[in-house]
Amino acid sequence: MTSQADLISTGELRLALRNSGMPLEALRWPITPPGLHYLLVHYDIPYVDVDRWQLRIDGRVERRLALPLAELKRRETVTVPVTMECAGNGRAGMRPRPVSQPWFCEAVGTAAWTGTPLAPLLREAGLDRGAVDVAFTGLDRGIEGGVAQAYARSLPVAEALGSGAILAWAIGDVPLPPQHGFPLRLVVPGWYGMTNVKWLDRIAVLDAPFDGYQQVTGYRIRSAADEPGEPVTRMEPRALMVPPGVPDFMTRRRFAPLAPCRLEGRAWSGRGRISRVEVSADGGASWRDAELGDAPGAHAWRAWWSEWMPAEPGDFELCCRATDAAGNVQPLAPEWNLGGYANNAVQRVVVTVGLR
Amino acid sequence: MTSQADLISTGELRLALRNSGMPLEALRWPITPPGLHYLLVHYDIPYVDVDRWQLRIDGRVERRLALPLAELKRRETVTVPVTMECAGNGRAGMRPRPVSQPWFCEAVGTAAWTGTPLAPLLREAGLDRGAVDVAFTGLDRGIEGGVAQAYARSLPVAEALGSGAILAWAIGDVPLPPQHGFPLRLVVPGWYGMTNVKWLDRIAVLDAPFDGYQQVTGYRIRSAADEPGEPVTRMEPRALMVPPGVPDFMTRRRFAPLAPCRLEGRAWSGRGRISRVEVSADGGASWRDAELGDAPGAHAWRAWWSEWMPAEPGDFELCCRATDAAGNVQPLAPEWNLGGYANNAVQRVVVTVGLR
Repeated sequence: MTSQADLISTGELRLALRNSGMPLEALRWPITPPGLHYLLVHYDIPYVDVDRWQLRIDGRVERRLALPLAELKRRETVTVPVTMECAGNGRAGMRPRPVSQPWFCEAVGTAAWTGTPLAPLLREAGLDRGAVDVAFTGLDRGIEGGVAQAYARSLPVAEALGSGAILAWAIGDVPLPPQHGFPLRLVVPGWYGMTNVKWLDRIAVLDAPFDGYQQVTGYRIRSAADEPGEPVTRMEPRALMVPPGVPDFMTRRRFAPLAPCRLEGRAWSGRGRISRVEVSADGGASWRDAELGDAPGAHAWRAWWSEWMPAEPGDFELCCRATDAAGNVQPLAPEWNLGGYANNAVQRVVVTVGLR
Repeated sequence: MTSQADLISTGELRLALRNSGMPLEALRWPITPPGLHYLLVHYDIPYVDVDRWQLRIDGRVERRLALPLAELKRRETVTVPVTMECAGNGRAGMRPRPVSQPWFCEAVGTAAWTGTPLAPLLREAGLDRGAVDVAFTGLDRGIEGGVAQAYARSLPVAEALGSGAILAWAIGDVPLPPQHGFPLRLVVPGWYGMTNVKWLDRIAVLDAPFDGYQQVTGYRIRSAADEPGEPVTRMEPRALMVPPGVPDFMTRRRFAPLAPCRLEGRAWSGRGRISRVEVSADGGASWRDAELGDAPGAHAWRAWWSEWMPAEPGDFELCCRATDAAGNVQPLAPEWNLGGYANNAVQRVVVTVGLR
């Protein structure tokens, strides 16, 4: 039965149809195939004339810069595999359900972003001594919480210089598609997706904390609307599995034969290397360690797998749980907050075993 | 206010998050950029080892064929721009709402499919005189309506030979991504999306009408479950517009300044060339003709535009309506059926004019 609490509004459905999750069987690939990486677009995808486009760097700098794409491409070029996850991933699993893009756990993907490191560009512009934050503004415009805005987010100076952030113009050797920020986006390894500003227009160095909507109103962990809350920053650890067996079209319920089954998936954290993944076939009552494999890069998810032999026909609740080197471990149940951010509760996949 | 009838179940939301619509601002491109084409996957995206894969052609043929991909690529190669639309596009606009993938109107896209024509391959295999249908089976497996199945659909022999169908291994010059049917899919210009079987495994020539689930149970226009119904075949005409102005993040409501505005979009039909597109700024009370532009190919959508100057601030309900050369015209309101198929009622976009 579907209870009232589980019903979704048409506004949320409109968001779900615009934004794309990564079907979890795509966890099979270390680098997410083109078109399967999750995508969240706050407003509309802007149409950008790259011949007229320039990246502006200004604010509290010694030298303002205005750089066309060809100029940026003449700088040091790197390709960095990065696992990126939406800060709202897991929102639809919270009760009461925060109303926004209603992700279950599919808002993730790994791409090999190609671009130029951010830090040398900021040094070239020359940060003033009083610089505090670096604000990144995109060309995507809309209204949110009653405020007309271009999408903008900031990083503290230390993170802008030290996090390995790049300005990316390609995925591998393919130019950014429009929906991923053509012609240029920010990519900050380890941070939740909202940080990675697309359709980058301007980088402004500020001598006071950035007070844009997406920094002080959106993306805060709050329990009530009148609290300032804590900012959402780096990704919490999470393991996901490829759902075993085959699905029912409508319910997405899984069915598998009574036979040995390899549970497999990927795990990541923005707070430390993945040090452990555990699996459970009884809803989290008992756990055992999975094998850990490679990651396509230091900032990308790590493969894991575990052989499972169901003892008898019936329903099994499979779970997986990641721990990172900093000691962070996934909770068994969601930790609620008003905006529905950073819910990294363990994935639960019910499988009916005994399909003929 | 959201009424009970407008609320969506979590099952439908799971489908909406797996399947991807084309954000309507992507109507700006004549060929949909990679990753923005709509995508519907009934079961899971299969993982195919192309080195072991072969296309089998058998059934009522003189010569069975088993063709690896390299063998197919040695045949005549064509690239055909095709507009493809899901048969369920518009389903979420019907009342009572049929429960399945809940599209509004975003389940469409145009790709330049590269592959080899189907008809010469069928002639090479040699159809028996009694051949009636040609059935296409994919490698994607699941359960639907209680029936375990591999996804399969058929075409009458005349359509298999005469519709311009191709077996596609690439989009432009890029190999099919996994979610679009790697290594090979059927593409039948003019037909709704369910026809274009992905991950093609087998083509079987039959001497009786194909009775697979997706042919006789799914994709039928019925008013009650005990009717045989009429099969869903070719796309009905439809025009869509790029929603003007900027959106509110959560409601997707549009806001635009009091200024001249170009309404623009694309229109298509699987039943004849688009001969007319009309626009309305008063919810369909009055209409005027839009300008018609080019199509990227005979089987692809046609551009249209119309200059609009709102007379005063306020709310306007914009509509667009297509007519094809066969005289088919879009209805103003949905025509309900049990499965929610082929709802080509005119698009309605409410815009609040007067944004400062």
